[in-house]
Amino acid sequence: MRIGELSRRTGVSVPTIKFYVREGLLPAGELTSPNQALYGETHMQRLRLIRALLDVGGLSVAAIRDVIVAVDDPEKSVHKVLGVAANRMVPRYEREPDDGIEEARKKVADLVAARGWHAYPDNPAAEALAAALAALEDVGHGSFAEVLDAYADAAERVAGADLEYVARHVAREELVESVVVGTALGDAIFAAMRRLAQVDASNRIFGGAT
Amino acid sequence: MRIGELSRRTGVSVPTIKFYVREGLLPAGELTSPNQALYGETHMQRLRLIRALLDVGGLSVAAIRDVIVAVDDPEKSVHKVLGVAANRMVPRYEREPDDGIEEARKKVADLVAARGWHAYPDNPAAEALAAALAALEDVGHGSFAEVLDAYADAAERVAGADLEYVARHVAREELVESVVVGTALGDAIFAAMRRLAQVDASNRIFGGAT
Repeated sequence: MRIGELSRRTGVSVPTIKFYVREGLLPAGELTSPNQALYGETHMQRLRLIRALLDVGGLSVAAIRDVIVAVDDPEKSVHKVLGVAANRMVPRYEREPDDGIEEARKKVADLVAARGWHAYPDNPAAEALAAALAALEDVGHGSFAEVLDAYADAAERVAGADLEYVARHVAREELVESVVVGTALGDAIFAAMRRLAQVDASNRIFGGAT
Repeated sequence: MRIGELSRRTGVSVPTIKFYVREGLLPAGELTSPNQALYGETHMQRLRLIRALLDVGGLSVAAIRDVIVAVDDPEKSVHKVLGVAANRMVPRYEREPDDGIEEARKKVADLVAARGWHAYPDNPAAEALAAALAALEDVGHGSFAEVLDAYADAAERVAGADLEYVARHVAREELVESVVVGTALGDAIFAAMRRLAQVDASNRIFGGAT
């Protein structure tokens, strides 16, 4: 199909489609003349994926591109591709270096060791966790750390389910989608479920009380 | 202290402090003359909280205000305040009404019923979950629903820990902080931990393979 039809069928405007091609998110169409390119089902599918990641997953264009490039590289092992995906999908918090972040990093290193998690030393997720823990201390809620073990138990349960899902869909052409779907949409799904379960727990503990 | 000192001690500029007062996030200082107000420890603490919620929690100014107003209302039960907090901290996704969202809403209702979760019918978290599930279907990953039970188990574990934390800090003046810290920073903490646990699970399943 031509770009106009691709735009109509996906609801993505022609300038936006061209932007995605320039940015490396979407493969170029097959040129049939110097001014005309044809697009197929793979473009439709990829466009739907990009929109879902932008709108629901909240990923940046640069993050989506990095993940897609890693998946398209046949030299990269599945484990490496998953590493790139996990790293690019960690929200980054800017924080001035101070004593608080140093102490929080030690806590994270202790937690990772206690859990026996295999993690790279410069894992961005470890840094994001340290920033969140330092912010807790800043607002006088360092004691929230009491519940970290419950969070870690739950994170292991969710990550195990994520990887089982990826393992079932590990044909390479499906890998990018399983990874980004599992990671980006999984965050949204988990956050929403946590709110639902909170209301239920709150009803049990505080329901009816004033 | 005067507003200039409050600014120096918190690193928040004077115009930003005035903006927070106008928007109802921060109580006004005590007027000592028509042009001069005094600020105290509670202002320092509240400013640190606002910054943490904006920077790490990713909440909007409007969301922070609604939560604070609910906590300051002595008529509202703890359960109601938690409900306001949970509702205002759900990311909202815009989605055109279509068959996909209708089907996803049914799935969410089934899940809530199967889990026995007490939830209000128009709970924004249920709608956010439906939008994420509909997005999964759009990108051809409806089968990700296979792992929803694992997510729900983990969400119950985390929500239980959240509420235990709140129950331990339920002195009313501390409630706003426990709730927003537990909810907003908890999301950041859980997302980071999930990435760490994913790398570990990936190493076990795919490590060394190419």
